[in-house]
Amino acid sequence: MEFQGALERLHAIDKECRHLERAVAVLQWDMETFLPEKGVEERAEQLALLEGIAHERSISTEAGRLLLELGSTHENPQGDEKLPALERDFLKVFRRVYDKKLKLPVDFVSAQAKAEGLSQAAWVAARRDNNFSAFLPHLVKMIDFSRQRAIYWGFVDNPYDGLLDIYEPGMSASDIDAVFTPLRERLSSLLKKIAGQKRPDCSFLDQDFDMETQARFSLELMKKLGFDSSRGRLDVSAHPFTTTLGPDDVRITSRYLPRQLQSGIFATIHESGHAFYEMGFPQSIRGSILADGASMGIHESQSRLWENVIGRSLSFWKAMFPSLVEYFPDELSKTGVEIFYRAINLVEPSLIRIEADEVSYSLHVILRFCLERELFSGVLDPAELPSAWRKKMKEFLGIEPETDAQGVLQDVHWSIGSFGYFPSYALGNLYGLQFWEKLVKDVSDADELISQGNFAPIRSWLNDNIHSWGRRLDPQDLLKTVTGSNLSAEPFLGYIESKFSTIYGS
Amino acid sequence: MEFQGALERLHAIDKECRHLERAVAVLQWDMETFLPEKGVEERAEQLALLEGIAHERSISTEAGRLLLELGSTHENPQGDEKLPALERDFLKVFRRVYDKKLKLPVDFVSAQAKAEGLSQAAWVAARRDNNFSAFLPHLVKMIDFSRQRAIYWGFVDNPYDGLLDIYEPGMSASDIDAVFTPLRERLSSLLKKIAGQKRPDCSFLDQDFDMETQARFSLELMKKLGFDSSRGRLDVSAHPFTTTLGPDDVRITSRYLPRQLQSGIFATIHESGHAFYEMGFPQSIRGSILADGASMGIHESQSRLWENVIGRSLSFWKAMFPSLVEYFPDELSKTGVEIFYRAINLVEPSLIRIEADEVSYSLHVILRFCLERELFSGVLDPAELPSAWRKKMKEFLGIEPETDAQGVLQDVHWSIGSFGYFPSYALGNLYGLQFWEKLVKDVSDADELISQGNFAPIRSWLNDNIHSWGRRLDPQDLLKTVTGSNLSAEPFLGYIESKFSTIYGS
Repeated sequence: MEFQGALERLHAIDKECRHLERAVAVLQWDMETFLPEKGVEERAEQLALLEGIAHERSISTEAGRLLLELGSTHENPQGDEKLPALERDFLKVFRRVYDKKLKLPVDFVSAQAKAEGLSQAAWVAARRDNNFSAFLPHLVKMIDFSRQRAIYWGFVDNPYDGLLDIYEPGMSASDIDAVFTPLRERLSSLLKKIAGQKRPDCSFLDQDFDMETQARFSLELMKKLGFDSSRGRLDVSAHPFTTTLGPDDVRITSRYLPRQLQSGIFATIHESGHAFYEMGFPQSIRGSILADGASMGIHESQSRLWENVIGRSLSFWKAMFPSLVEYFPDELSKTGVEIFYRAINLVEPSLIRIEADEVSYSLHVILRFCLERELFSGVLDPAELPSAWRKKMKEFLGIEPETDAQGVLQDVHWSIGSFGYFPSYALGNLYGLQFWEKLVKDVSDADELISQGNFAPIRSWLNDNIHSWGRRLDPQDLLKTVTGSNLSAEPFLGYIESKFSTIYGS
Repeated sequence: MEFQGALERLHAIDKECRHLERAVAVLQWDMETFLPEKGVEERAEQLALLEGIAHERSISTEAGRLLLELGSTHENPQGDEKLPALERDFLKVFRRVYDKKLKLPVDFVSAQAKAEGLSQAAWVAARRDNNFSAFLPHLVKMIDFSRQRAIYWGFVDNPYDGLLDIYEPGMSASDIDAVFTPLRERLSSLLKKIAGQKRPDCSFLDQDFDMETQARFSLELMKKLGFDSSRGRLDVSAHPFTTTLGPDDVRITSRYLPRQLQSGIFATIHESGHAFYEMGFPQSIRGSILADGASMGIHESQSRLWENVIGRSLSFWKAMFPSLVEYFPDELSKTGVEIFYRAINLVEPSLIRIEADEVSYSLHVILRFCLERELFSGVLDPAELPSAWRKKMKEFLGIEPETDAQGVLQDVHWSIGSFGYFPSYALGNLYGLQFWEKLVKDVSDADELISQGNFAPIRSWLNDNIHSWGRRLDPQDLLKTVTGSNLSAEPFLGYIESKFSTIYGS
């Protein structure tokens, strides 16, 4: 075949780029888990060097020439029509990443990285001191850098669309708005309704749960979900995450708090959901740029399905609670599974996104989406963010933070210029329930299987229908291919309204 | 200063090379400690790529040009005389490493690496199956590659000298022979004498010592020795090792066997000795090629001093035994410290080097040195190695292996072409006691300090006198600078004869 040589060479370059990215991931994983306190400075230098080398290789002129030889251009990224579908998907994604990287001037990237470092440090201090105005100049810089990045990349209507495209390829702010508007209205109204109901008993959670025992339970839980320990690990870090160090080396972390048993459990389940995705890419795309999630939102759909739809269901705890009680007999043997189930599904408006329940979580996200949009359209002055934040909190959740530390300063994302990232979290909820609706049609006894602790059929379905695509399809195409439908908030809202009206009565 | 620009640039290149080497060390450390079983293949590919990048950078033509600009040539490695002493040492070492790497053709290095991989795998199988002849063709290849390497590097008398120079710069086989000959004679004779004495009671060691408790004791021991946990870690691996991931990130590993309490303890002390060296390089050479040990032998002098001279002394256990008994009250509370001391100093000829006591250890090493010398001078045919091994074992230690697995096949070194490495182990013993003789003059109450568990003055002395030099001096120059003497076996022999005649009576 005429393209064979060029294809093989491009695959070899791709493989080297992935190896370098994985090496970076090893150094980062180690930094979050085992690095001695004083090793941080040196590690940052090692990482900067390796990331620089990885970047250089991924935008080599050789790769650019090979893409052209294979017919892949900015306008026709998939390349020559005679190529097999898999290769055309490979070229599409390689070209997209290549263009995005190449369009940013080297000086711009290094100035941005430097400013990000300073900005994140300033954010840490500002949150600690509850001092938004000390952070404001950095925030303004981050917005400027992000706007400039969007200009380099190009966009149709608003620079914000250019930023969203990194996390959710093909999605614009108005696409997202179309589903977020009904989502916000119905979740806000449900939240108000629940506020009038009796609060479930959560007192039994306010005990000291030994952290090592929690870690041992998490490990068992992860294995029961089907995590293959010969291809991954569970460790501890300050913030739970999933990282891929190789096709057969996917690592998750969790963290255990003595008086918050549920925190570690659901972190472990959530990250396991991410890990199943990363472990589930097929042999045909192993070690290639296609062996990745379709988008941030699709990735979140996997983690949130496991954490919430499966992990916070009554059926799940019918299977798992006896084992949890074995780990904590003194603390839990007097608690019934129904009580436990209601406690882990407590709904209560709260100030902090990452502690939010299933009903209010998406509202926290939509709030950020609205503010990001207004920042980039120029409607909102960054200096006005704290008051805009409080106003929206009142409107969406009915509560207001007393301090900016508990408000606009709570998340790291903006301090490192990750504008456009937040929507993925709520999109993950929507995608997840659209997938789930299809899954329960295909795997008819899903709920029964869960209550037996038999997750293999569910894992298989997710693997066959979603994971096996890797990054070949854009999120909306994947959604359509799997479910036959376009993006919609209905399945998620139907699930939420039904679940919580049962728990809280209606 | 006229050379300033060139010096700064060479230091920047050096720093990048060290960063890459450290990144490789992170990936290797992870491979030995935490890598999931199925991640090995991918990790090997990541490592090959990173090592290749590190190699390319370290022999860049820019570095070569800068060395010349600074007056550093093969004949005059230290460069221009107007440069400060520290910079001249830097140039000397950079030039030496640069030349050694550059002299090996790229094709040769990759052919050698491939052959090494096959040879090591063949060795694993041959040792398992006790089948020397299956390994022989690989061994012959490894000898050929090593001889060729020595030719590329250059040597005066014998290619073996060219190989030794990698591990002990400036040492020839005849230099080593001059100290190994009296060492062998007197150790052999001491060993025979001890064989006639009463064997100490070691029965109490034949109990199950819980491995997690051993690990906790090792951690405490390491901290008591003075290991700064904010600059390093202790983990578990199949074979104990020390590795430097950064100037403030030095990691050691140990391994615990249920019925061999002493094995994990002395591995931890040994590796701590290596770690103190690596943690002890001064700010002036931080992150540079000079921040390394003077040689393999000097490195071993540090680990063996801590393991044997300090760690196997009665004073040491007077300080530490009460704590060990607290960890193992059921197993040890009936054992006195004197009994313990005699048991951990059991002398008995044995077949396996890494299990040998202080008296016979060096004999195992000298045996290998003699055989290596004969192999490279052509006196010994590799096919005759098993019988030569048995003959020498009989002569040096008075025992013979029944199988080659317990004889010539026991060590990995030859299978990966590391000829010339073994002597460093015994040289470490000699250097160590020469240093120690000086140390006890300067720190007059060393033994008393040890019995109080106060190691800070000893660590300080080693740091000020040895570690602070890094790699600036060659081993013989360092020895002369620190002790005023040339290499000699007398201090070590005096120590050994005195210690063991006390334990065994004489």
